[in-house]
Amino acid sequence: MTPVNSPAAMPRGGSRLDPWVDSYAARSAGLTASEIRALFAVASRPEVVSLAGGMPFVSALPLDILADTVAAMIRDRGAVALQYGSGQGDEHLREQICEVMQLSGINGHPDDVVVTTGSQMALDLVVRIFCDPGDVVLVESPSYVGALGVFRSYQCRIVHVQMDDDGLSPAALTETIDRLTEQGARIKLLYTVPTYQNPSGITASPDRRAEMLQIAARHNILVLEDDPYCLLGFDGHVPQAIRALDDQAVVYLGSFSKTIAAGLRVGWALAPHGVREKLVLAAEAAVLCPANYAQLTVAEYLDTQPWLDQVKVFRELYRERRDALLGAMAAQFPAGTTWTVPEGGFYSWVTLPEGLDATAMLPRAVSSLVAYVPGTGFYSDGQGRESLRLSYCYPEPERIVEGVRRLAGVIESELDVAHTFGTDHVQPPPGPAFPDPGMS
Amino acid sequence: MTPVNSPAAMPRGGSRLDPWVDSYAARSAGLTASEIRALFAVASRPEVVSLAGGMPFVSALPLDILADTVAAMIRDRGAVALQYGSGQGDEHLREQICEVMQLSGINGHPDDVVVTTGSQMALDLVVRIFCDPGDVVLVESPSYVGALGVFRSYQCRIVHVQMDDDGLSPAALTETIDRLTEQGARIKLLYTVPTYQNPSGITASPDRRAEMLQIAARHNILVLEDDPYCLLGFDGHVPQAIRALDDQAVVYLGSFSKTIAAGLRVGWALAPHGVREKLVLAAEAAVLCPANYAQLTVAEYLDTQPWLDQVKVFRELYRERRDALLGAMAAQFPAGTTWTVPEGGFYSWVTLPEGLDATAMLPRAVSSLVAYVPGTGFYSDGQGRESLRLSYCYPEPERIVEGVRRLAGVIESELDVAHTFGTDHVQPPPGPAFPDPGMS
Repeated sequence: MTPVNSPAAMPRGGSRLDPWVDSYAARSAGLTASEIRALFAVASRPEVVSLAGGMPFVSALPLDILADTVAAMIRDRGAVALQYGSGQGDEHLREQICEVMQLSGINGHPDDVVVTTGSQMALDLVVRIFCDPGDVVLVESPSYVGALGVFRSYQCRIVHVQMDDDGLSPAALTETIDRLTEQGARIKLLYTVPTYQNPSGITASPDRRAEMLQIAARHNILVLEDDPYCLLGFDGHVPQAIRALDDQAVVYLGSFSKTIAAGLRVGWALAPHGVREKLVLAAEAAVLCPANYAQLTVAEYLDTQPWLDQVKVFRELYRERRDALLGAMAAQFPAGTTWTVPEGGFYSWVTLPEGLDATAMLPRAVSSLVAYVPGTGFYSDGQGRESLRLSYCYPEPERIVEGVRRLAGVIESELDVAHTFGTDHVQPPPGPAFPDPGMS
Repeated sequence: MTPVNSPAAMPRGGSRLDPWVDSYAARSAGLTASEIRALFAVASRPEVVSLAGGMPFVSALPLDILADTVAAMIRDRGAVALQYGSGQGDEHLREQICEVMQLSGINGHPDDVVVTTGSQMALDLVVRIFCDPGDVVLVESPSYVGALGVFRSYQCRIVHVQMDDDGLSPAALTETIDRLTEQGARIKLLYTVPTYQNPSGITASPDRRAEMLQIAARHNILVLEDDPYCLLGFDGHVPQAIRALDDQAVVYLGSFSKTIAAGLRVGWALAPHGVREKLVLAAEAAVLCPANYAQLTVAEYLDTQPWLDQVKVFRELYRERRDALLGAMAAQFPAGTTWTVPEGGFYSWVTLPEGLDATAMLPRAVSSLVAYVPGTGFYSDGQGRESLRLSYCYPEPERIVEGVRRLAGVIESELDVAHTFGTDHVQPPPGPAFPDPGMS
């Protein structure tokens, strides 16, 4: 055999950095590493208080009980758990998922559920089957960074629609649709996280949900409802899902990442029947089938453990952390800083005093051993420089307080710099408010 | 709140069957359910001997030991196993994967490995980053049905290249490339399963591997080497991978589905560095990260269990079943039937006596309580009607013998019918041979 590590094996037109640089698909142009990636590698050092990541606090899970549950499952059903399974997902788990969704007022049939490798994969599959390059996806302002990545990867045109503290603005939605329709755009999806939104922490009111749905349906736009946080409301209330209002106009995405464990990667889509058929075929092309191992772990846990009690443990733990964050921000942040008050979930959205730039400030924050995600990550169009997302889900409350103290110091120094260079303004007192001045 | 289950919520242009029928992306046109799907639901009944599925015999795994291994892993590392992880995959597992690949002569770096939800997802990601609609993918004749599904789902043009019993024909490959290049086609990938191929059972010779690589590299065509069966050679020999010959011209796909367990869904890609970067970004858009839970299970199993001894158990078990299949075919199949003799893996490729049609015959086979996959499934262009794939991996040897007995009866009846209607020919004696008369 002749080894062929030779110039003959190097594609023409390539570079030493990447010999395949001329061979990629057009859609790969949207795949570029985020500028803040390197910074986050630094931010993961233990001395940094990270208010950046959205990691659930899985250490609150009863690991001994889980270990026993999984061991029993492998002994009893190992031949199934370790085997290929259905492309649509385990039937018993799909029944259990329908019971979980009933908590959000959803009447779904197991036949219309597709189990996926986290709900991220469900999101990917929906976009894959619906969106041609150039098709418009409407999203909130701001919107979930992981969803924006999917839309970009399928070369969608992302258009942000204004929000206020009751959720997406119906007037702005109608205006945006009319404007785009006039331009001849094909609007395929309205992507929304209506409950304890990532990143804003905002929850859409019941009226807004109904209005959003009616406007979308009137214009043949499928509502893509992403609902991973619904059971994490601090008062125990579960908002009624948009999908509860209509079974044909909505694809609903759910996840066990925040109620059981993110590392299992078990999520799902509930879709109108015809859409579900296409989703299953797309899922089979993408991964053949979701992991029986993780699915049967979830099914066994739901069947044998008091899982809603554990969700309550998570909820109370996150409430305590949210309170720590809100208290510290009110006590420490300088005048002109505003933030949202989430009623559940993981996030608060902070808007800096006028003239400050959260993206430019991030390296200085990391030097001061605190990290956040700049607001620009949640927009596809450069908006969000004045804002940032703070996550309170993972660090202990005292660490959150310390992180806010550090961040307040960074904001103060930025204000000093701005003052020195004359770009400051008279700032209103700090406090909770809907954040983005550019949005209302 | 107003329920909106009303005509207003029904998109215009939709049908009662699927209101969204006019909204799908162009790529969804390739997503159609296989005609034989319903038949396979019947074929999964216990009274049917299924020689159709490619399910590994996971019952041979030591379930008690696995249960203890996983329980210990959750107790010790649950906070990691149940958490989100790196989009590229767990670092320790990537190191272990490099050790596994050394068995195939591959010198890879953990930095260039991406862990995926089964190697199917790696395949999907490679096509996603490389192939625009209309781009050509070269594949073997026949080729793996799951890969054809991926290529179709990205609207690739699939072109089959002839094989013989030493693998892909270099002359045919060159001729095909020249012809397509003359037409102005953009050929992106050469997809090959060089070892114990699914579905043909054929293994490419060392010389053929080197020739295939040189021809592809000369034409800027990336070789996509899919190698899930490499450790399942019946004589214990592991063929040297094509990737062992060149680290820039090949993306190598590997899997634990056949060496540990398919239900874990842990596979990987080893790619040139620039390609790997894009693969990780695409993976993050697709699923955020592979499941730490499954990855740490595999890592713990590799670290603490004699996993290569277990592979040997699988190998001997599959050899016994291959022998049962070959013996039964030689004893039972009528004159004119030929088949391949696999030296490893799961499959033999059978060609029926002239004039018979494996696709048309399938319903009658299922009525006679035996199932197989018709050859047409492994072609994108309607070829393969005279052939079928038999899998010997899952049924016990005596069931395989019974299945072949039933199938032989079905072939005999088909020959009787053909004889009655005058379409039969003088048939050569039955026996092992390279199968497809249309291919050489």
